[in-house]
Amino acid sequence: MLEVICIKESRVPEVVIRRLALYLRALSQIDASESAFVSSQELAAKVGVTAAQVRKDLAMFGEFGKQGVGYHAGFLREEIARILKADRTIEFVIIGAGELGIALGRYTLRKYESEQAYPFMLTAMFDIDPAKVGHKVAGISVRHISEMARIVNERCIGMALLTVPESAAQSVIDLLGETRIKAVLNFAPTRLVAPRGIRVHNADVSLDLHHLAFFL
Amino acid sequence: MLEVICIKESRVPEVVIRRLALYLRALSQIDASESAFVSSQELAAKVGVTAAQVRKDLAMFGEFGKQGVGYHAGFLREEIARILKADRTIEFVIIGAGELGIALGRYTLRKYESEQAYPFMLTAMFDIDPAKVGHKVAGISVRHISEMARIVNERCIGMALLTVPESAAQSVIDLLGETRIKAVLNFAPTRLVAPRGIRVHNADVSLDLHHLAFFL
Repeated sequence: MLEVICIKESRVPEVVIRRLALYLRALSQIDASESAFVSSQELAAKVGVTAAQVRKDLAMFGEFGKQGVGYHAGFLREEIARILKADRTIEFVIIGAGELGIALGRYTLRKYESEQAYPFMLTAMFDIDPAKVGHKVAGISVRHISEMARIVNERCIGMALLTVPESAAQSVIDLLGETRIKAVLNFAPTRLVAPRGIRVHNADVSLDLHHLAFFL
Repeated sequence: MLEVICIKESRVPEVVIRRLALYLRALSQIDASESAFVSSQELAAKVGVTAAQVRKDLAMFGEFGKQGVGYHAGFLREEIARILKADRTIEFVIIGAGELGIALGRYTLRKYESEQAYPFMLTAMFDIDPAKVGHKVAGISVRHISEMARIVNERCIGMALLTVPESAAQSVIDLLGETRIKAVLNFAPTRLVAPRGIRVHNADVSLDLHHLAFFL
């Protein structure tokens, strides 16, 4: 019988969480009809780590595999999805309905509609520009930022994508301090000071380009 | 006089390169009229590391600062730009003219036109879909992927953004093996096996969302 070891969230190193997301992605790409079981070696090869790393990471959360048999792919996928809270629908909002915000909105909505296991559902988009408010992005209305706190709190939405200009990003994240938002993916090219209780990850394309250019 | 220590590119840890990109971003946001000098403490606070880390990172490349005075912001910005090759125009292409590719194309073009120090210039976009070929994205024509190798090699382009579907990503990066492309930013949600000499960084939004959802 599976015995899940309960560990405090804060105890799990960031790199392990990142690898769990990679394992989940790899498991989602395994055709269930091909093989019911996956070895730590196979999973490791798909993610680009060692088999020992896979076993060590998964052992933090329970005993998911059998020696010599490997992991049941479907079961492991479900368990990792549960750990990452991807076993339920996760509503999120996009703040900033510029080009990047609209593109990310369409992209995530299409994934949500076409991929059964994709948990992220765009619920609302917000902008401060009256010219954008009222427009629809793939069926989702852009609303004024002044409505954000109410809508987010009423629907208990915990996640936001921030696609506002650099100059507006800090004031927007300050607003989020009064909401139920707990996780923000920030695309603005600036470091934000997050209100207490909000975790911010940065996804700055220019930063990636600068990093890569070093190798040219 | 400044004495730049030459170190082999491969010797610089990835995390240091990433932090250099962060220092460059922070220095670009400092208003030159406010203060000519920046201390390691100030720079550290803007990036979210310790002052000792800043000094250690920069010392890998030379002596840029003066004890008790700090770094000359403009000079340091130029030196880091030089290390990251951001002191010249870097042409790049986008492969995959779907929503994400088009949004990134517009976004980077606008930055290139509006920010004096932004070095990344979109030169061409490619797609395999005849319905997309010939269309213009902010003045840049979408060309057929069969023209890619010729155009990239003629113009000595070293960098590509990959915004094709997951199913096409590996075959596209295989094609890049015969070109001058040396650095790829991959937005497709899959791990790619890169041809020799090509460095791939991954920018998968879904992966970021899965990571963040752990903290909900």
